[in-house]
Amino acid sequence: MPISSNHWGLYTDFYELTMAQGYFYCGKKDDTTTFNYFFRTNPYQGGFTVFAGLHDFLKLLLEYTFNETDIAFLEEQGFNKEFLEYLRTFKFSGNIISANEGEIMFPGEPVLQIEGNIIECQLIESMLLNILNFESLVATKAFRTKLVANGKVFSDFGLRRAQGLGAIHGSRAAKIGGAASTSNVLAGKLFDIPLSGTQAHSWIQSFDTELEAFRAFARTHPEDTILLVDTYDSLMSGIPNAITVAKELEKEGNQMQAIRLDSGDLAYLSKKARKMLDDAKLEYVKILASNQLNEYVVKSLIKDQNAPIDGFGIGTELITGKSDAALDGVYKLVEINGRPKMKLSENIEKVTLPCKKQVYRCFGDDGTFYRDAILVADENPEEAEFIFHPVYPERKTQITHLHKEPLLNTVVKAGEIIREQKGTDEIHQYLSKRSELLPEEHKRFISPHIYKVGISQKLMETRDALTKQLLKKSSV
Amino acid sequence: MPISSNHWGLYTDFYELTMAQGYFYCGKKDDTTTFNYFFRTNPYQGGFTVFAGLHDFLKLLLEYTFNETDIAFLEEQGFNKEFLEYLRTFKFSGNIISANEGEIMFPGEPVLQIEGNIIECQLIESMLLNILNFESLVATKAFRTKLVANGKVFSDFGLRRAQGLGAIHGSRAAKIGGAASTSNVLAGKLFDIPLSGTQAHSWIQSFDTELEAFRAFARTHPEDTILLVDTYDSLMSGIPNAITVAKELEKEGNQMQAIRLDSGDLAYLSKKARKMLDDAKLEYVKILASNQLNEYVVKSLIKDQNAPIDGFGIGTELITGKSDAALDGVYKLVEINGRPKMKLSENIEKVTLPCKKQVYRCFGDDGTFYRDAILVADENPEEAEFIFHPVYPERKTQITHLHKEPLLNTVVKAGEIIREQKGTDEIHQYLSKRSELLPEEHKRFISPHIYKVGISQKLMETRDALTKQLLKKSSV
Repeated sequence: MPISSNHWGLYTDFYELTMAQGYFYCGKKDDTTTFNYFFRTNPYQGGFTVFAGLHDFLKLLLEYTFNETDIAFLEEQGFNKEFLEYLRTFKFSGNIISANEGEIMFPGEPVLQIEGNIIECQLIESMLLNILNFESLVATKAFRTKLVANGKVFSDFGLRRAQGLGAIHGSRAAKIGGAASTSNVLAGKLFDIPLSGTQAHSWIQSFDTELEAFRAFARTHPEDTILLVDTYDSLMSGIPNAITVAKELEKEGNQMQAIRLDSGDLAYLSKKARKMLDDAKLEYVKILASNQLNEYVVKSLIKDQNAPIDGFGIGTELITGKSDAALDGVYKLVEINGRPKMKLSENIEKVTLPCKKQVYRCFGDDGTFYRDAILVADENPEEAEFIFHPVYPERKTQITHLHKEPLLNTVVKAGEIIREQKGTDEIHQYLSKRSELLPEEHKRFISPHIYKVGISQKLMETRDALTKQLLKKSSV
Repeated sequence: MPISSNHWGLYTDFYELTMAQGYFYCGKKDDTTTFNYFFRTNPYQGGFTVFAGLHDFLKLLLEYTFNETDIAFLEEQGFNKEFLEYLRTFKFSGNIISANEGEIMFPGEPVLQIEGNIIECQLIESMLLNILNFESLVATKAFRTKLVANGKVFSDFGLRRAQGLGAIHGSRAAKIGGAASTSNVLAGKLFDIPLSGTQAHSWIQSFDTELEAFRAFARTHPEDTILLVDTYDSLMSGIPNAITVAKELEKEGNQMQAIRLDSGDLAYLSKKARKMLDDAKLEYVKILASNQLNEYVVKSLIKDQNAPIDGFGIGTELITGKSDAALDGVYKLVEINGRPKMKLSENIEKVTLPCKKQVYRCFGDDGTFYRDAILVADENPEEAEFIFHPVYPERKTQITHLHKEPLLNTVVKAGEIIREQKGTDEIHQYLSKRSELLPEEHKRFISPHIYKVGISQKLMETRDALTKQLLKKSSV
């Protein structure tokens, strides 16, 4: 794989480089800018988004440099020598404040805020969006699954259906969202994720009979035997053969761990399997299930049908964040040389909010998440009396008396990572704790209650004044 | 990015390694096996699939080895020393026959056939599926777009919404399917894809006025000025300002290349924009469009609404293969030590076909694709009289008189790549040529005509005999 693995400078959109060269030549290269990363809608028509990917983005950011072959390639593309000299020693030297990985975030609020010169802020845009959008998408999917799994574990089995090397960060995000383990060995090594897996149909097929295949597997894995029972016929062949082998294991003082169902009606088959295992006094043998699962199917099996399934292997939909494919996160200029900036749009929801900001989570009297307040960075949160709906300002909430926590903390200062990132396990624990504070009505799958995010009066007034000014200036 | 970029041994599912160790210890490590890669349904409810990813898979296959840290990691996971010694010098040493990249393929037929010892064939499964499933998904999406673009070009703008590093192979696949260029600079470098891009809203916002921003861009890019016109208001501000700058460029002897619309109703705005440009005698200025496009929107704009759009930038849906997220390709054991193998299933469509095979494309009298015939590898295609529907054998087609071409050619022999892979451009040209031979009714989006793939009598008889035998053996 011809990736220059320590130099990710080219992992960007061509226009970032074109603009960077433009800034370089039109005297703007030392302009100081602030950009915000935020998304506009929660994935899966859900009520929240789990933020993930910060660790991986920061790793790549440190390696966001250009090596000699990169420079040569850009020269072929027509970039100018002076600008290429600039890139040769390029390194991000700005500041980043960010929400914690595993934080529960909502549309419209900044998740990261990036400050630096205009060139460095521009160049890293594509990579930032690429990593954060994807990991947040998958972490959210995984957490939705965990919310309905009723304590049953599930594993990421998605490598074979992942979008190419997206598998690497996807498996990490699945773990953050709540997967107990992954089948992806490389991700396990890179991110310290427990590995899991059993056997494929090919194992069974490679022996003359299923029973022989089961026996051979039990012989080589006496302490962690999990048998895939659907190669020929789950009820008529697979489960009876698994029971035979479990009894043989017992004679040697071992207990079979589980059987795995991988086709057919999982509710029906798991109930039949449970009864067959119990009748054979194999109450300890667990039942695992896989095959085209997602959070809706898991919910239906566990909560609606009481299927006696102890664990799930989830592939395609988890690792690709189906049916959404992408989180719609964007990266917008909000300030330049101390002056607020914004983008108008024919769609009012697409108008961006100017200014350096801070997001405060406001807690209700019962200690749960109640409102998020977006303030101008230098505002004193204790002085902001009301927050306003960004589009319908007549809808406002008093926040004076509410307990508030700032969500964005400095993670990069002058190009250096100053806040150590947590492991996937710890991030998931953080997510779980935060989730306890999110009222249930925001977690349901169907028409979840919309969590309110408001803006301060100061931010609203700055935006409105700037809008007027822009409309005047830009009209012809 | 801590990828051990020359050792991809861990880029596999955990169970592949568990099974490999099992084969190693139960005396099967030198068993010779044949596996088939095939998919079960065309993506996007379409009538065909464009095969892509072979080049990337083969590159990774050569690097499918284990370094010291990989071995140490596996030791921590409990793998045995002897087996780890085996992995230390592991290298795929088998044979692969494959369809050409860019070939149009259909459900149920082998796309690759892999022969080797059981361990090597098993270990590479996950990586093969990961790369081939994804690139074929995106190449198919891109080609569907090309089919309805009426000669208009489109570019891959997907990096920011791609699934992490999946962007790298996704951009290559988009090019194979018909994208003229990509915004992804790294993919451009790795796969020799033309780059394209213009400017972001941040460029415009970073200047005091839109006109100033346009002028600055034109100054730094006088020969390839493309201006994004929707930062404030496309019709009232962006297009008039672009016209002003185009006229200024003319005075210096340059021609503005294009404007880009990125929001609002693209049909309406492009017609207005065309008229405004034409009225200003700027007939040569092209109109580009982006914003949540896919093949259906392109078709609607170009074919149904006659929108005067000259080119498209397509992001999310192209690079992620939305709405499908994954091709359902699988990898199944079909032969071991010369004996045919298959998997039964409660779903008849999931029963696999045993035996080493070859696929023959059969041409109709008019020279177009007519049927695909799956034969046992050693069958003489001139002697196969009929092919049969795999599930309904009463549906058969005589193929004796038809011109036939074998689709699978040797690409790897004894672990060495023996067939040089083509560049993305050449692969796309091959695809275009083959597509001319695919009757139109298989290309339409809605209820496309199903292309018939049949099996030879010998294959059918082998399968049916094996089914009987398996049902007898596996029942209890």
